[in-house]
Amino acid sequence: METVNGGVTLAKGFKASSCKAGVKYKDRLDMAMVCSDSPCVTAAVFTSNIVKAAPVLWDRRIVREEGKMTRAMVINTGIANAGTGSEGLRLCEETAKKAADVLGIDKDEVLIGSTGVIGPQLNMDAILSGIDMLKEGLSDTREAAHEASKAIMTTDTHPKECAVTFELDGKTINLGGMAKGSGMIHPNMGTMISCITTDLAISAQMLQTALSDVVRDTFNMISVDGDTSTNDTLIVMANGEAGNSLITSGGAAYDAFREALLYVCRDLARALAGDGEGATKLVTCNIINAADTEKAKVLAKSVITSSLTKAAMYGNDANWGRILCAMGYSGAKFDPDKLDLFFDAKGCERIHIYHDGAGLPFSEEKATDLIKHDEVIITVDMKEGSSSATAWGCDLTHDYVSINADYRS
Amino acid sequence: METVNGGVTLAKGFKASSCKAGVKYKDRLDMAMVCSDSPCVTAAVFTSNIVKAAPVLWDRRIVREEGKMTRAMVINTGIANAGTGSEGLRLCEETAKKAADVLGIDKDEVLIGSTGVIGPQLNMDAILSGIDMLKEGLSDTREAAHEASKAIMTTDTHPKECAVTFELDGKTINLGGMAKGSGMIHPNMGTMISCITTDLAISAQMLQTALSDVVRDTFNMISVDGDTSTNDTLIVMANGEAGNSLITSGGAAYDAFREALLYVCRDLARALAGDGEGATKLVTCNIINAADTEKAKVLAKSVITSSLTKAAMYGNDANWGRILCAMGYSGAKFDPDKLDLFFDAKGCERIHIYHDGAGLPFSEEKATDLIKHDEVIITVDMKEGSSSATAWGCDLTHDYVSINADYRS
Repeated sequence: METVNGGVTLAKGFKASSCKAGVKYKDRLDMAMVCSDSPCVTAAVFTSNIVKAAPVLWDRRIVREEGKMTRAMVINTGIANAGTGSEGLRLCEETAKKAADVLGIDKDEVLIGSTGVIGPQLNMDAILSGIDMLKEGLSDTREAAHEASKAIMTTDTHPKECAVTFELDGKTINLGGMAKGSGMIHPNMGTMISCITTDLAISAQMLQTALSDVVRDTFNMISVDGDTSTNDTLIVMANGEAGNSLITSGGAAYDAFREALLYVCRDLARALAGDGEGATKLVTCNIINAADTEKAKVLAKSVITSSLTKAAMYGNDANWGRILCAMGYSGAKFDPDKLDLFFDAKGCERIHIYHDGAGLPFSEEKATDLIKHDEVIITVDMKEGSSSATAWGCDLTHDYVSINADYRS
Repeated sequence: METVNGGVTLAKGFKASSCKAGVKYKDRLDMAMVCSDSPCVTAAVFTSNIVKAAPVLWDRRIVREEGKMTRAMVINTGIANAGTGSEGLRLCEETAKKAADVLGIDKDEVLIGSTGVIGPQLNMDAILSGIDMLKEGLSDTREAAHEASKAIMTTDTHPKECAVTFELDGKTINLGGMAKGSGMIHPNMGTMISCITTDLAISAQMLQTALSDVVRDTFNMISVDGDTSTNDTLIVMANGEAGNSLITSGGAAYDAFREALLYVCRDLARALAGDGEGATKLVTCNIINAADTEKAKVLAKSVITSSLTKAAMYGNDANWGRILCAMGYSGAKFDPDKLDLFFDAKGCERIHIYHDGAGLPFSEEKATDLIKHDEVIITVDMKEGSSSATAWGCDLTHDYVSINADYRS
């Protein structure tokens, strides 16, 4: 497997486009389209929030239909089309129908993603004329993919893309994706909108198996603010144009794809966490040597979700008591008198900060220098088994508050 | 029942004191003592955090012993004595022993409360000389109680006290308490230190029954930041000096006491939520007409815990989508297309903001004016039953981040 500079147009037969439709924001890219020349088997995971946005309901219906192939995805930012009742569903269908018309496909082959403010109805004049522009702009260039990844941002500070290639049956398989998401990010499905494309030939069932498996260790292990969105949508479209033997069961070919998908999802998930609203750094928590994986996940997530730990990270304060406290209220059972806690950052000497029930002496100055890095790694050795898990979050900053006190106005 | 100006010294036979011991802070009140002339039946609830501070372990052992009476409680701020291992437990015992010596009682009659930074060991020189000062200062005056309520504060901006009286068997029963807590506040036991005293004659079992009952609707229904502390301790001491017939079972006398205890606990809990770290307002969420109480509680707590809803309250932004979103990920099942959402504040016209699946038109200006009040009340009518619950929280502000980025240093 090799990482490459690419996005949703890397895989054969995929095009992308973006435009300034004026859905809510003026004079910025706010709509994107991804389109495949040939029909795609499609896998997806959606928000677990009971309040589901209209596009989530639309996409879920399509993806759950056995044997259903898709061709395109249309994404808008600015308005989430959530909390919009039956009118919201109608406008979602109208969007899909318009895209289907211009692309010459069926409306049930069009997936929709919306992100932005909950409540208002879509501005359909902007959406419909935007789709005309998107059709005109479709291209398979690197640039087109990159512009699309910019068009789906809301409060994100930079676009998120990842792409890899790997060999199968002497064919090159391409896999590339983009993601957006910065606030209302909390594990339980990844909490964002992400579109990943591949030219792999794979059955719908195995594609969904791979995605559901991979998402548990990637998008479901990040948090920005504990708020699980109404709009989370992660789509993988596979059009089979690479020409490999169709993957219909487990085995070496499936494993190679799963590894590539894991890489792309983890990279995008880490990028979302590190670009959390107002964040100045990525906070990674590794729980190692736990009794079982589920417990390791619960502990890792609790640490990166704790407001107090996040605020301490912002203040470059090695306040390990808050980490211990967050583990203690996580719901996982463990013996606080039998664990070790470490801080790491790239290029820094590891700091061993807690051992078997009490803090160890450490240099506050070195700890502060370590926490100032772009990624701070908190490792907790549970010393009770051999399972591990990693979760990713960010610090809690003044800017998070500013962004979210003002967001709707 | 009548509310009165008082605190922990209102009940007959109780004295309090406070001092500047210099445990961590210099030149501010940082230790308090509450002491009864006669032995007290005692009820308590403690943190559910697995990582329990040494004083929590100490108090729990005492309160759980059948027939055990207590006489005094000693509280320090600055250092939490949590994450301190066996040495922390030893210092806790030494503190109790010193207090017992100066008061001429048994060390197992002394309850301990510690609050502050997790990790460091207690500064015993300060603690021991502090206890000498506390013994000297003991007094049954209103002023002594008020100074004690100030001495237990950490990042609190003002002291919290509440007191009521009621009649029983022709006797006046006095009930008064104090509480501290501003950060690391999250429902699941009240998450703070609180000491409530009464001269009621009641059995230990009925006192614990009343406290466990009342705490579910009061201290367990507040949140500041979702972080359940290692030190939460709520103690009620009853010395029987009012001379009423001993309450040993349910009935009118028990109900009168329960009502008074509910009032005091709710008042102190609301005060904790409204004085959350950096908070500018109290945010109250009423869930009404729910199918059952448990569901109503889960929904109400989820709303007041949501970082995004809290940030919107800070920004005076009627962003009801975030409230709906927080209900949706709470874990409670409901139909988002069948509920009504209202905003209220004292002296303001009610704003009906969401009805049966979609937002209603409203004046942004009036909504902003409403949210600027000291207490904002969010009411959600589930229209599915007759159960209700109320939870209390606060807004998420720049000052919360500042306080917690800098707290330890």
